[in-house]
Amino acid sequence: MDKLNIIKIGGNIIDDEMKLSEFIASISSLNEPFILVHGGGKLATDLAEKLNIPQQLIDGRRVTNAETLKIATMVYAGYINKTIVALLQKNNINSIGLSGTDGNLIEAKKRKNNEIDYGFVGDISKESINISFLESMSNLGLTPVICAITHDKKGQLLNTNADTIANVIATCLAHLFEVKLFYCFEKKGVLLNSEDENSVIESLNFETFQDLKNKGIINKGMIPKIENCFQALANGVKEIGIINAQNCVNFITKNNNEGTRIK
Amino acid sequence: MDKLNIIKIGGNIIDDEMKLSEFIASISSLNEPFILVHGGGKLATDLAEKLNIPQQLIDGRRVTNAETLKIATMVYAGYINKTIVALLQKNNINSIGLSGTDGNLIEAKKRKNNEIDYGFVGDISKESINISFLESMSNLGLTPVICAITHDKKGQLLNTNADTIANVIATCLAHLFEVKLFYCFEKKGVLLNSEDENSVIESLNFETFQDLKNKGIINKGMIPKIENCFQALANGVKEIGIINAQNCVNFITKNNNEGTRIK
Repeated sequence: MDKLNIIKIGGNIIDDEMKLSEFIASISSLNEPFILVHGGGKLATDLAEKLNIPQQLIDGRRVTNAETLKIATMVYAGYINKTIVALLQKNNINSIGLSGTDGNLIEAKKRKNNEIDYGFVGDISKESINISFLESMSNLGLTPVICAITHDKKGQLLNTNADTIANVIATCLAHLFEVKLFYCFEKKGVLLNSEDENSVIESLNFETFQDLKNKGIINKGMIPKIENCFQALANGVKEIGIINAQNCVNFITKNNNEGTRIK
Repeated sequence: MDKLNIIKIGGNIIDDEMKLSEFIASISSLNEPFILVHGGGKLATDLAEKLNIPQQLIDGRRVTNAETLKIATMVYAGYINKTIVALLQKNNINSIGLSGTDGNLIEAKKRKNNEIDYGFVGDISKESINISFLESMSNLGLTPVICAITHDKKGQLLNTNADTIANVIATCLAHLFEVKLFYCFEKKGVLLNSEDENSVIESLNFETFQDLKNKGIINKGMIPKIENCFQALANGVKEIGIINAQNCVNFITKNNNEGTRIK
């Protein structure tokens, strides 16, 4: 099977023009096919603040009213997505920016929750992904850059968690490619001590994870993220890394230990 | 040769959610392949105002500084583009939203002008268009929705006139398809008297145009637009219409006279 790397980027490499430019140059030298998935960093929050649109987060998830969805669509599908694609083109990677409505790539369901109204948030499953469309892009030699905006095929755009998109796409493609999944952010990996940047857990298996979870060392936001990783591995994804963006290419090509490998 | 309609939309059908939704439903019933090209309406200007970014226009062209480019990219490539694609998907048209950097579709050159600095404005010619990429989209049964953001292949996004994009794409595809080009806006067509909405010039040939231009009846902004239309006809485009968006489908299918046909 051909190799395919699904790389999710988030956090301050998106907010910082210089870091983003360096990251894209480095990833362009990878010599292996990849799909980029990105969130929105702080740019959407900053824009909402400037426009005096109050933002509400419940358990780390943005409550997406109509105005917030508009901002997310502008920032994720517009500014960030096209900035990344233009940088890849500069580095001779023929890329294509996609939201979930383009080519009907990701058909989500608006979240229903009787207790909390998350607004225009879309939940996805394996069935949501248009795999043949992604295969077509791959056959054309195009590198997809996928943002966290999806749709419901009824004319409504939706906001979907970028980590989830990366995970579900990796899972869907695992029977067609040798898929590796990498989450790139500003920290060096999953930390034993959140205040010690060098306390990276190099290797995490399900038992270690359960143990660290029970001890409260792996904290709230990280738990579902890592649980989804184990699910993806169970579904055929070959390898998962949680790493610093600057170390992404070395982690993939030189197989070094500067990050967390989930096995 | 297969038929292909290039339809440029602008003005208040983009600004008005209801009108846009009706227009997309109507165009989805066309039963002929099409490519949509869109500008940004007043939404970009409104957002710039809310963010206190002063806008400067010279001869009807926006001067695009870095902040204005960011706004244009957010509004054109993000909000408007994805809103249109989602509406087409709702109407069972499998569409894909594209800026000029996606698939390297439009490689523009940053405008050089010793007198006026237009900022991040991209000029294009026939050589700018990646025709084989558009053919690939067509072969996949995808309807392109193209926004007025291009790039220079050196990592810089650029703002390009949407009318020009529609015209140049029509010209480029005229040897592959039977291309018709339609400019849809809020007026009924080119008017003899700008204050009389019903004074539509039904048919405009080069002689009539020269005559109306000399008499000052066809005014400044319209002159280069129509000159480009005659150029496109000379290069093989079969028909050009300047029409009201609500009349678009009837104008194309029933060949009616409620609009301006350029011959």
